[in-house]
Amino acid sequence: MPVSKRQHVVIVGGGFGGLYAARRLAREDGLLDVTLVDKQNYHLFQPLLYQVATAGLSAGSIASPIRGVLSEARNVTVRLGEATAVDLNAKRVQLLDGTALAYDQVVLTTGVRHSYFGHPEWEVHAPGLKSVDDALEVRRRVLMAFEKAEVEADERERQALLTFVVVGAGPTGVELAGALAELSRFTFARDFRVIDTKKARIVLIEAGPRVVSAFSERLSAKALASLQRLGVEVRLATRVTNVDGAGVRIGDELLASRTVLWAAGVEASPVAKSLGVPLDRLGRVIVNQDLTIPGHPDAFCIGDLASFQGPDGQPLPGLAPVAIQQGKHVGDNVAAAAEGWPKRPFEYFDKGTMATIGRAAGIAQTGKLELSGFLGWVAWLFIHIIFLIGFRNRALVLMEWSWAYLTYQRGARLIIGGEAPKQLPAGQ
Amino acid sequence: MPVSKRQHVVIVGGGFGGLYAARRLAREDGLLDVTLVDKQNYHLFQPLLYQVATAGLSAGSIASPIRGVLSEARNVTVRLGEATAVDLNAKRVQLLDGTALAYDQVVLTTGVRHSYFGHPEWEVHAPGLKSVDDALEVRRRVLMAFEKAEVEADERERQALLTFVVVGAGPTGVELAGALAELSRFTFARDFRVIDTKKARIVLIEAGPRVVSAFSERLSAKALASLQRLGVEVRLATRVTNVDGAGVRIGDELLASRTVLWAAGVEASPVAKSLGVPLDRLGRVIVNQDLTIPGHPDAFCIGDLASFQGPDGQPLPGLAPVAIQQGKHVGDNVAAAAEGWPKRPFEYFDKGTMATIGRAAGIAQTGKLELSGFLGWVAWLFIHIIFLIGFRNRALVLMEWSWAYLTYQRGARLIIGGEAPKQLPAGQ
Repeated sequence: MPVSKRQHVVIVGGGFGGLYAARRLAREDGLLDVTLVDKQNYHLFQPLLYQVATAGLSAGSIASPIRGVLSEARNVTVRLGEATAVDLNAKRVQLLDGTALAYDQVVLTTGVRHSYFGHPEWEVHAPGLKSVDDALEVRRRVLMAFEKAEVEADERERQALLTFVVVGAGPTGVELAGALAELSRFTFARDFRVIDTKKARIVLIEAGPRVVSAFSERLSAKALASLQRLGVEVRLATRVTNVDGAGVRIGDELLASRTVLWAAGVEASPVAKSLGVPLDRLGRVIVNQDLTIPGHPDAFCIGDLASFQGPDGQPLPGLAPVAIQQGKHVGDNVAAAAEGWPKRPFEYFDKGTMATIGRAAGIAQTGKLELSGFLGWVAWLFIHIIFLIGFRNRALVLMEWSWAYLTYQRGARLIIGGEAPKQLPAGQ
Repeated sequence: MPVSKRQHVVIVGGGFGGLYAARRLAREDGLLDVTLVDKQNYHLFQPLLYQVATAGLSAGSIASPIRGVLSEARNVTVRLGEATAVDLNAKRVQLLDGTALAYDQVVLTTGVRHSYFGHPEWEVHAPGLKSVDDALEVRRRVLMAFEKAEVEADERERQALLTFVVVGAGPTGVELAGALAELSRFTFARDFRVIDTKKARIVLIEAGPRVVSAFSERLSAKALASLQRLGVEVRLATRVTNVDGAGVRIGDELLASRTVLWAAGVEASPVAKSLGVPLDRLGRVIVNQDLTIPGHPDAFCIGDLASFQGPDGQPLPGLAPVAIQQGKHVGDNVAAAAEGWPKRPFEYFDKGTMATIGRAAGIAQTGKLELSGFLGWVAWLFIHIIFLIGFRNRALVLMEWSWAYLTYQRGARLIIGGEAPKQLPAGQ
């Protein structure tokens, strides 16, 4: 046992990576103390956020209070706060409230945020989907668009209100477009008296040649077919040139729309820039095979924030399983380092990827096995419930889904916050 | 059948009264058309709103989309909008968006809002609890107070952060204070590392001589004992003289507190004033025994907005059962009037009142029967679940409660919206 001093480990970020690292290090009660910092008080199950945005789930069902999850980890302190910079040489994490946390080892896992390809002014017209607040804002916009359309006298404006554009056909974009189609085709079918919600136009725009390009060509084609069956208009190899109050512009064409949702691009959270180390094209921290930051053996970076070169030479994708496995592994390495043992390289065990397209259709790919249709959807359902943290949430989500599946209803149809109906100008 | 013209009935307000009236009138598909106007898109089960405010339930679990509830009522149109005035002579409801709805008969049931006894400037420091937005704001303040206290270095400021003052000891105030005590004594007990949440001070201030004065003296004393057992400091016959950023002032005494919640008084929604008819002390519309507004046989007013003289000469209390029974009855009377039959007087069947104080203690009173303690709590639970509209919500609430009861945990501990942690000044 070469080292005996009790160490202080700071984990920045309470997503999958941070939470699994903290859980692993809770076993080292005699060896080290951990402080987990997050700007939210809850851990969020991001893969289901699109369900909150489309009124299928309550926000509380996919979020767990970080303090509650870690309450039995007596050597772990949870702190609400936003890290603005990390000084890797002075070994300090700077928080926005002015305090600084000194560390012996640090784990950075603050994830990514939306990127508008150099057009930050598009954000106000096309919100993305990263936090609960984002999801509630999207839900408000979507539900309000139907409410406004119901009382709109002008035919062109009504059309624009009933046109929903999703930019980006990765898993989130595909799932959003599918859920919007379900909402308008089934859930709302008998709820409005003036508009025919089935005629709502849902357009999914993708710059690349196919949807969910992380999947095989076969599954990608299946996903496309499922979307088209739901009536989603998919525009491939199409680049957005402008987004404003009028809608989305594609070259000379204007898609008049009052509800544009952004699922196109991400960039690393800004804390990465403060490190003064090499970043990749998306601003992510390029890490060593043992998950440390080059030149800083006591600083680790994992999850979406890290650019980790996989066996095929490509960076690992920004998926929950990657973050979970890295979180557990970084916990091992931090504990090993505290005891003076060598760190071990991380190896990703690819269990596959999956996505769902509306009701009872999904795609899943794991190694050579590919599932689609109902089987793909069941696999998706099963895996997502397994990964939800906390028994309570699992049971709630299962119940909300069973209910939605049996009745086509969606329970979380609340318009809250933001623009109140009273602020609508006359005629809207 | 003296009258045959198809009538248009406008219902203003989607609370219990409006919803039950609309359901009753849905049976008159051949006789009349109904438009239900509400400024929210959801019906809210207000008696459980304090549970959302104290992180026990998700907002979606106690709210149902009005369109969904009435989707099978084919002669009922739901419209999102805020009524600003009603012209009882011209028979038109004026909406904030500029449109006006002409009616043959109208049912007004827009309820009440908080009243600060002539001190509207207190509201920003002491939010009340009427809408989902209110409840989420209260939840945010309560959860943030604990988070701030955990990192606060100044002892006096930490004490103020851990002092929660509830003004008004009616059912809502008592339930809020009980839930806050539970939150700090049990739920949070092991979640914080610096502060001892069990030492949080919860003060309940009441101007009258006893808590829940609508109940018998015996039950009122039981409720007081339950509150004190939970560690709530109850101050009776105490009048608040000021509320500001420093806390609550009672005469010369300042209760330093960062979280003040208002459950003290209500006044009628402003639409009442536009009618030009006699109002009572709280601004409520004084109605005839058949629920019509005096001098306007085609205009009805029910629920909290109405002042209906009960058999004891007092106005009926603002309770869900009153609104439900009046909603059904007003539906009968509207249908009768449309057919040319006489309207019948309303009679309230008092099924009793109830309240809950923290975990597994409640009081219930129905006629001569009085329940308290665990039995009172079970009665409360049972009745509230029965009245929740929609099977899905009932099942969700039952599950969230069973979980909370078994584990002392609360699932909906999300800080969303409003002030982000990044806006905290240094040291808070």
